[in-house]
Amino acid sequence: MILEHIGIAVRDIEASLRQFQVLFNAEPYKTEDVASEGVRTHFFDAGGTKIELLESTRPDSPVARFLEKRGPGLHHLAFQSQDIEADYKRLEEAGYRVLGDGPKAGADGKQIFFVHPSDTEGVLTEFCMAAR
Amino acid sequence: MILEHIGIAVRDIEASLRQFQVLFNAEPYKTEDVASEGVRTHFFDAGGTKIELLESTRPDSPVARFLEKRGPGLHHLAFQSQDIEADYKRLEEAGYRVLGDGPKAGADGKQIFFVHPSDTEGVLTEFCMAAR
Repeated sequence: MILEHIGIAVRDIEASLRQFQVLFNAEPYKTEDVASEGVRTHFFDAGGTKIELLESTRPDSPVARFLEKRGPGLHHLAFQSQDIEADYKRLEEAGYRVLGDGPKAGADGKQIFFVHPSDTEGVLTEFCMAAR
Repeated sequence: MILEHIGIAVRDIEASLRQFQVLFNAEPYKTEDVASEGVRTHFFDAGGTKIELLESTRPDSPVARFLEKRGPGLHHLAFQSQDIEADYKRLEEAGYRVLGDGPKAGADGKQIFFVHPSDTEGVLTEFCMAAR
Protein backbone atom coordinates (compact mmCIF):
# COMPACT_ATOMS: atom_id res chain seq x y z
CA MET A 1 0.00 0.00 0.00
CA ILE A 2 1.69 3.22 -1.16
CA LEU A 3 1.67 6.19 1.21
CA GLU A 4 0.18 9.09 -0.76
CA HIS A 5 0.53 11.77 1.92
CA ILE A 6 0.69 12.61 5.64
CA GLY A 7 -1.62 15.29 7.01
CA ILE A 8 -0.41 17.52 9.86
CA ALA A 9 -2.94 19.77 11.62
CA VAL A 10 -1.50 23.23 12.35
CA ARG A 11 -2.89 26.18 14.29
CA ASP A 12 -0.81 29.12 13.05
CA ILE A 13 -0.10 28.50 9.37
CA GLU A 14 2.43 31.34 8.95
CA ALA A 15 4.55 30.15 11.88
CA SER A 16 4.20 26.52 10.79
CA LEU A 17 5.30 27.24 7.24
CA ARG A 18 8.42 28.99 8.56
CA GLN A 19 9.19 26.07 10.89
CA PHE A 20 8.77 23.38 8.24
CA GLN A 21 10.63 25.33 5.58
CA VAL A 22 13.69 25.41 7.84
CA LEU A 23 13.17 21.82 9.00
CA PHE A 24 12.95 20.47 5.44
CA ASN A 25 15.27 23.06 3.93
CA ALA A 26 12.63 23.43 1.19
CA GLU A 27 9.56 25.42 0.15
CA PRO A 28 5.96 24.18 -0.15
CA TYR A 29 5.13 23.60 -3.84
CA LYS A 30 1.34 24.00 -3.76
CA THR A 31 -1.58 25.34 -1.70
CA GLU A 32 -5.12 24.13 -2.21
CA ASP A 33 -8.52 24.85 -0.63
CA VAL A 34 -10.89 21.95 0.00
CA ALA A 35 -14.10 23.80 0.80
CA SER A 36 -16.07 20.63 1.56
CA GLU A 37 -13.66 19.80 4.43
CA GLY A 38 -13.12 23.41 5.57
CA VAL A 39 -9.40 23.06 5.08
CA ARG A 40 -6.52 24.70 3.21
CA THR A 41 -3.61 22.32 2.49
CA HIS A 42 0.03 23.33 1.96
CA PHE A 43 2.09 20.62 0.20
CA PHE A 44 5.75 19.73 0.74
CA ASP A 45 7.47 17.11 -1.39
CA ALA A 46 8.89 14.25 0.71
CA GLY A 47 10.32 11.92 -1.92
CA GLY A 48 7.68 9.46 -3.13
CA THR A 49 5.14 10.99 -0.75
CA LYS A 50 3.85 14.39 0.44
CA ILE A 51 3.57 16.26 3.71
CA GLU A 52 0.40 18.35 3.87
CA LEU A 53 0.01 21.08 6.47
CA LEU A 54 -3.71 21.35 7.23
CA GLU A 55 -5.09 24.78 8.08
CA SER A 56 -8.72 24.99 9.18
CA THR A 57 -10.79 27.57 7.27
CA ARG A 58 -13.92 27.41 9.45
CA PRO A 59 -14.49 26.87 13.18
CA ASP A 60 -16.55 23.65 12.80
CA SER A 61 -14.24 21.82 10.36
CA PRO A 62 -12.85 18.37 11.25
CA VAL A 63 -9.35 19.90 11.55
CA ALA A 64 -10.61 22.65 13.88
CA ARG A 65 -12.23 20.00 16.09
CA PHE A 66 -9.02 17.95 16.09
CA LEU A 67 -6.97 21.03 17.10
CA GLU A 68 -9.38 21.78 19.94
CA LYS A 69 -9.19 18.25 21.28
CA ARG A 70 -5.54 17.30 20.68
CA GLY A 71 -3.64 20.41 19.61
CA PRO A 72 -1.43 20.58 16.53
CA GLY A 73 0.29 17.42 15.28
CA LEU A 74 0.07 14.38 13.04
CA HIS A 75 -3.54 14.12 11.84
CA HIS A 76 -3.83 11.31 9.29
CA LEU A 77 -2.06 8.97 6.85
CA ALA A 78 -3.38 8.57 3.30
CA PHE A 79 -2.73 5.52 1.12
CA GLN A 80 -3.14 5.09 -2.62
CA SER A 81 -5.88 2.66 -3.46
CA GLN A 82 -5.91 0.82 -6.79
CA ASP A 83 -9.65 0.16 -6.51
CA ILE A 84 -11.29 2.39 -3.93
CA GLU A 85 -14.74 0.80 -4.10
CA ALA A 86 -13.17 -2.64 -3.52
CA ASP A 87 -11.04 -1.38 -0.57
CA TYR A 88 -14.08 0.30 0.99
CA LYS A 89 -16.07 -2.93 0.69
CA ARG A 90 -13.18 -5.14 1.84
CA LEU A 91 -12.65 -3.11 5.03
CA GLU A 92 -16.35 -2.68 5.74
CA GLU A 93 -16.82 -6.45 5.47
CA ALA A 94 -13.82 -7.02 7.76
CA GLY A 95 -15.67 -4.98 10.40
CA TYR A 96 -13.66 -1.75 10.17
CA ARG A 97 -15.52 1.50 10.84
CA VAL A 98 -15.30 3.06 7.39
CA LEU A 99 -16.74 6.60 7.41
CA GLY A 100 -19.54 7.80 5.13
CA ASP A 101 -21.66 5.76 2.75
CA GLY A 102 -18.82 5.14 0.32
CA PRO A 103 -15.90 6.98 -1.34
CA LYS A 104 -16.45 10.74 -1.89
CA ALA A 105 -14.68 13.63 -3.65
CA GLY A 106 -11.54 14.92 -1.84
CA ALA A 107 -8.55 17.19 -2.60
CA ASP A 108 -6.43 16.82 -5.72
CA GLY A 109 -9.45 15.54 -7.73
CA LYS A 110 -9.37 12.23 -5.85
CA GLN A 111 -11.98 9.81 -4.57
CA ILE A 112 -11.39 9.22 -0.85
CA PHE A 113 -12.70 7.55 2.28
CA PHE A 114 -11.54 7.39 5.90
CA VAL A 115 -11.23 4.54 8.41
CA HIS A 116 -11.99 5.45 12.02
CA PRO A 117 -8.84 5.60 14.22
CA SER A 118 -10.36 3.25 16.81
CA ASP A 119 -9.71 0.36 14.39
CA THR A 120 -6.12 1.36 13.56
CA GLU A 121 -4.29 2.08 16.83
CA GLY A 122 -5.40 5.70 16.93
CA VAL A 123 -4.25 6.45 13.39
CA LEU A 124 -6.90 8.15 11.24
CA THR A 125 -6.40 6.49 7.84
CA GLU A 126 -7.49 7.74 4.44
CA PHE A 127 -7.65 5.74 1.21
CA CYS A 128 -7.56 7.73 -2.03
CA MET A 129 -7.64 7.09 -5.75
CA ALA A 130 -7.29 9.47 -8.70
CA ALA A 131 -10.70 9.87 -10.36
CA ARG A 132 -10.90 7.91 -13.62
CA MET B 1 13.58 15.84 2.21
CA ILE B 2 12.69 12.18 1.63
CA LEU B 3 10.43 10.48 4.18
CA GLU B 4 12.29 7.37 5.35
CA HIS B 5 9.60 6.01 7.67
CA ILE B 6 6.63 6.74 9.96
CA GLY B 7 6.66 5.32 13.49
CA ILE B 8 3.36 4.26 15.09
CA ALA B 9 3.34 3.44 18.82
CA VAL B 10 1.20 0.37 19.59
CA ARG B 11 0.15 -1.20 22.87
CA ASP B 12 -0.88 -4.73 21.88
CA ILE B 13 1.43 -5.81 19.06
CA GLU B 14 -0.47 -8.99 18.14
CA ALA B 15 -3.77 -7.14 17.75
CA SER B 16 -2.07 -4.26 15.91
CA LEU B 17 -0.34 -6.57 13.45
CA ARG B 18 -3.70 -8.20 12.63
CA GLN B 19 -5.35 -4.76 12.19
CA PHE B 20 -2.63 -3.36 9.92
CA GLN B 21 -2.31 -6.56 7.87
CA VAL B 22 -5.99 -6.29 6.95
CA LEU B 23 -5.81 -2.51 6.50
CA PHE B 24 -2.80 -2.71 4.13
CA ASN B 25 -3.75 -6.08 2.66
CA ALA B 26 -0.05 -7.01 3.22
CA GLU B 27 2.34 -8.65 5.69
CA PRO B 28 5.18 -6.97 7.63
CA TYR B 29 8.51 -7.78 5.95
CA LYS B 30 10.88 -7.40 8.91
CA THR B 31 11.06 -7.21 12.71
CA GLU B 32 14.00 -5.65 14.51
CA ASP B 33 14.94 -5.03 18.14
CA VAL B 34 16.60 -1.72 19.03
CA ALA B 35 17.80 -2.46 22.56
CA SER B 36 19.15 1.07 23.12
CA GLU B 37 15.63 2.51 22.63
CA GLY B 38 13.76 -0.34 24.35
CA VAL B 39 11.72 -0.93 21.22
CA ARG B 40 10.85 -3.71 18.76
CA THR B 41 9.93 -2.43 15.28
CA HIS B 42 7.71 -4.23 12.75
CA PHE B 43 8.13 -2.91 9.19
CA PHE B 44 5.50 -2.59 6.45
CA ASP B 45 6.41 -1.44 2.96
CA ALA B 46 4.49 1.71 1.93
CA GLY B 47 5.89 2.46 -1.52
CA GLY B 48 8.99 4.66 -1.26
CA THR B 49 8.64 4.74 2.53
CA LYS B 50 7.97 2.42 5.49
CA ILE B 51 5.43 2.13 8.28
CA GLU B 52 7.03 0.92 11.50
CA LEU B 53 4.86 -0.39 14.35
CA LEU B 54 6.73 0.38 17.58
CA GLU B 55 6.36 -2.08 20.46
CA SER B 56 7.93 -1.13 23.79
CA THR B 57 10.21 -3.82 25.27
CA ARG B 58 10.69 -2.20 28.70
CA PRO B 59 8.47 -0.07 30.96
CA ASP B 60 10.74 3.02 30.94
CA SER B 61 11.33 3.24 27.17
CA PRO B 62 10.41 6.42 25.24
CA VAL B 63 7.60 4.51 23.48
CA ALA B 64 6.22 3.24 26.83
CA ARG B 65 6.18 6.81 28.15
CA PHE B 66 4.45 8.04 24.98
CA LEU B 67 1.78 5.31 25.31
CA GLU B 68 1.17 6.25 28.94
CA LYS B 69 0.75 9.91 28.10
CA ARG B 70 -1.06 9.83 24.74
CA GLY B 71 -2.14 6.25 24.03
CA PRO B 72 -1.36 4.43 20.78
CA GLY B 73 -1.00 6.42 17.56
CA LEU B 74 1.35 8.26 15.23
CA HIS B 75 4.65 8.70 17.08
CA HIS B 76 7.23 10.22 14.72
CA LEU B 77 8.27 10.99 11.15
CA ALA B 78 11.80 10.16 9.97
CA PHE B 79 13.52 11.87 7.04
CA GLN B 80 16.59 10.81 5.08
CA SER B 81 19.49 13.16 5.62
CA GLN B 82 22.27 13.45 3.04
CA ASP B 83 24.67 14.87 5.65
CA ILE B 84 23.45 14.24 9.17
CA GLU B 85 26.16 16.25 10.95
CA ALA B 86 25.35 19.25 8.74
CA ASP B 87 21.57 18.93 9.32
CA TYR B 88 22.12 18.64 13.09
CA LYS B 89 24.25 21.78 13.08
CA ARG B 90 21.94 23.68 10.70
CA LEU B 91 18.87 23.07 12.90
CA GLU B 92 20.73 23.67 16.17
CA GLU B 93 21.95 27.02 14.83
CA ALA B 94 18.43 27.89 13.67
CA GLY B 95 17.33 27.49 17.32
CA TYR B 96 15.55 24.12 17.02
CA ARG B 97 15.68 21.83 20.07
CA VAL B 98 17.76 19.00 18.62
CA LEU B 99 18.01 16.13 21.14
CA GLY B 100 21.30 14.66 22.41
CA ASP B 101 24.83 15.92 21.77
CA GLY B 102 24.81 14.95 18.10
CA PRO B 103 23.75 12.07 15.83
CA LYS B 104 23.80 8.61 17.45
CA ALA B 105 23.38 4.97 16.35
CA GLY B 106 19.75 3.95 15.63
CA ALA B 107 17.88 1.04 13.96
CA ASP B 108 18.83 -0.31 10.53
CA GLY B 109 22.52 0.59 11.09
CA LYS B 110 21.71 4.30 10.73
CA GLN B 111 22.96 7.48 12.35
CA ILE B 112 19.99 9.41 13.75
CA PHE B 113 18.89 12.43 15.75
CA PHE B 114 15.52 13.82 16.84
CA VAL B 115 14.04 17.33 16.84
CA HIS B 116 11.75 18.13 19.79
CA PRO B 117 8.05 18.29 18.79
CA SER B 118 7.62 21.73 20.36
CA ASP B 119 9.50 23.20 17.37
CA THR B 120 7.55 21.29 14.72
CA GLU B 121 3.82 21.64 15.49
CA GLY B 122 3.79 18.65 17.83
CA VAL B 123 5.45 16.31 15.33
CA LEU B 124 8.44 14.43 16.75
CA THR B 125 10.88 14.43 13.84
CA GLU B 126 13.85 12.14 13.23
CA PHE B 127 16.66 12.63 10.76
CA CYS B 128 18.60 9.53 9.70
CA MET B 129 21.48 8.60 7.43
CA ALA B 130 22.94 5.20 6.50
CA ALA B 131 26.32 4.82 8.21
CA ARG B 132 29.19 5.29 5.75
